[in-house]
Amino acid sequence: MGLFDELQAETARTKAASRLLAKLPTAVKNRALLNMSEALSASADFLVAENAKDLEAGKKKGLSGPLLERLSLTPKRIANMSEGLRHVAALPDPVGEILGMKRLENGLQVGQMRGPIGVIGIIYESRPNVTADVAGLCIKSGNGVILRGGSEAIYSNTAIARVLENAGASSGLPPHALKLIKTTDRQAVFELLKMDRTVDLIIPRGGEGLIRTVVEHSKIPVMKHDKGVCHTYVDESADIEMAEEIALNAKVQRPSVCNAMETLLVHESLASVFLPRFAKRLQAAGGTIRGCEKTLALLQGSTENLSPAEEADWQAEYLDLTLAVKIVASMEEAMQHIADYGSEHSEAIVTRDHPRAMRFLNEVDASAVFINSSTRFNDGFELGLGAEMGISTSRIHARGPMGLTALTTAKFIVLGDGQIKH
Amino acid sequence: MGLFDELQAETARTKAASRLLAKLPTAVKNRALLNMSEALSASADFLVAENAKDLEAGKKKGLSGPLLERLSLTPKRIANMSEGLRHVAALPDPVGEILGMKRLENGLQVGQMRGPIGVIGIIYESRPNVTADVAGLCIKSGNGVILRGGSEAIYSNTAIARVLENAGASSGLPPHALKLIKTTDRQAVFELLKMDRTVDLIIPRGGEGLIRTVVEHSKIPVMKHDKGVCHTYVDESADIEMAEEIALNAKVQRPSVCNAMETLLVHESLASVFLPRFAKRLQAAGGTIRGCEKTLALLQGSTENLSPAEEADWQAEYLDLTLAVKIVASMEEAMQHIADYGSEHSEAIVTRDHPRAMRFLNEVDASAVFINSSTRFNDGFELGLGAEMGISTSRIHARGPMGLTALTTAKFIVLGDGQIKH
Repeated sequence: MGLFDELQAETARTKAASRLLAKLPTAVKNRALLNMSEALSASADFLVAENAKDLEAGKKKGLSGPLLERLSLTPKRIANMSEGLRHVAALPDPVGEILGMKRLENGLQVGQMRGPIGVIGIIYESRPNVTADVAGLCIKSGNGVILRGGSEAIYSNTAIARVLENAGASSGLPPHALKLIKTTDRQAVFELLKMDRTVDLIIPRGGEGLIRTVVEHSKIPVMKHDKGVCHTYVDESADIEMAEEIALNAKVQRPSVCNAMETLLVHESLASVFLPRFAKRLQAAGGTIRGCEKTLALLQGSTENLSPAEEADWQAEYLDLTLAVKIVASMEEAMQHIADYGSEHSEAIVTRDHPRAMRFLNEVDASAVFINSSTRFNDGFELGLGAEMGISTSRIHARGPMGLTALTTAKFIVLGDGQIKH
Repeated sequence: MGLFDELQAETARTKAASRLLAKLPTAVKNRALLNMSEALSASADFLVAENAKDLEAGKKKGLSGPLLERLSLTPKRIANMSEGLRHVAALPDPVGEILGMKRLENGLQVGQMRGPIGVIGIIYESRPNVTADVAGLCIKSGNGVILRGGSEAIYSNTAIARVLENAGASSGLPPHALKLIKTTDRQAVFELLKMDRTVDLIIPRGGEGLIRTVVEHSKIPVMKHDKGVCHTYVDESADIEMAEEIALNAKVQRPSVCNAMETLLVHESLASVFLPRFAKRLQAAGGTIRGCEKTLALLQGSTENLSPAEEADWQAEYLDLTLAVKIVASMEEAMQHIADYGSEHSEAIVTRDHPRAMRFLNEVDASAVFINSSTRFNDGFELGLGAEMGISTSRIHARGPMGLTALTTAKFIVLGDGQIKH
């Protein structure tokens, strides 16, 4: 049996399981999640041992320190995975939620009811904890899940999936509801992307290359989790101290993530007051600036680690303490810069001017738009969703942080007492 | 310039226009829609004359009577297109609608705001009135629109698009907001499906072949409008007279459409009372029955136009007065039949039993599920959406009738007063 046929058979089993999963009572799903959580904790030694095989192989292959760090499963990380599943068990079940029920003139009552999407395929890189996080969210929302992790984490992912599958099956989840693709053959990704009769949604989580490959080849709908080139615009009327705190937080609180700021836009009228102070604090935090000409003229002499910004800097997702800085003549120029160079991820304005705040909110096109707050809040936990599958940069189905409801579909429900169409 | 480059340049202009369209005040969009409506009425003679060229070419190519009928633009149909645009102008603008605004513990106010998806590509067959209908919905929801109609309607579609473009441009719509692809080269569809940087959503409307081609080749997200193999299940506890009216309506009121019933499922306990009466009325309406063995045994002798159902009949979308009929031993058997053969479009139960009604509602997986009412109501106008882009059989973004809100995306909006992440 070739890879295609094998995957087709495997995904068909998960599709069949998903039909049973869709009808499972909430209590059964929650019990399974709690058992999966306990099983992970109880299997910590096994998981650490399997993870050691990946780490050893990674060292031999010459993976960088940060990559090995992302790959490693410590007892603390295992405890976090376990805790994550308990947290998901405690969230309300989105399946069966009824929306907007209305009575029409002819007496029909019409609304929508949420149900699972079906089978969700997750293609992800590196961090093995994703295996447990996404499996938990899919099971809670009644979806079958096909996992395809990176080859560098194959022992860790296989071990986690085995623990979850066993705990799930012995708690009443249908067999095959959760499946990890065990071959590391790269071709398996391409074959998986053809399974549009058994897989209903593909979520790629990883670098630009992975996402581009998936979008290029998928016959299945894709929810992208793409890069974040995020801006903070400090408006003419900003409270300067507030702007300083927000911009600093957006850059330095955790620079390696997609919702961290990459470019700071400053209105020219307050640049000479704001920028020298800000640059000093950024420098103290270890940051470096790539500035536009006006920024250079303003900071030259007073600031170290300063260099001229080139065209590529406005497009860069640095993911470190480098910050591009541009002085703009107007909010219009700032918004045009965001439209030209932003990745529609997280965009913020700091202002005291109400009409400008409203205009920025209405016109800036991004998964999340912030007024007087840090872009770092673009996250399912921070925005009150209770959990997160990642941050969608797609424009359809779900935009921004994807919580449990983003893993559902809503069918129309129509309650009548004999209505026919005339 | 090759076809690819030409389409890329054209769709890029529409993408740029869509950014302006997204910010247009509702009043400007409504004024444009009303002017487009008036322009269609005023151009009736021109449209009829251009349509005559398509009809003549169609006759030469030997198109069937029904196809020629669908293709023809009568003064009445032009009046309907014109009326449709006035109706869309009167609907509330979905752009700027704010959903679920909540205050979090840290004082942030978080919700979502609807905005346009961007550029929507519609690939459709035959009926030229679709050109005006979909253009109106896209413009109202602030989306740029690229239209690709069938080659058999090229003169009609070109004429309608020209009238709409001119009226739109002179009413303040950005140029290129609305574009019809004028080449009839089939390759243009394949090239269009590669434009994932300038086109945000593809909606195919037409036969299975078209939809399959689009899903196979599109790098752009697709909302399918697939076929309807719809069922009505008459439960053991049904009010027999109500069941008769509902089933008859679902089949005969307009058999050529996707939400018409194709298979009737009848519980064995009332089949001998229900089916002979129903068969008589169906026969009087010109209908024919493909029955399971039990149905044949019950109706043989009393009913004409009766023949045995074969496996293919359970999968058939007849789109005429043919009806497959199956007697089932239980609701479970009926639901299993629907899961095995239905196309997840429109599914109905007639019952007086509350637990069964609720079980059918919860467990049947379709774009719309009906209790004690006709599947013919699965339609954006009938279900209160005010308008319709078609009926989505996709499971993500929108399922069932797509109204104006299904043409929007919702970004997160976050209002703060200095919050930073700790």
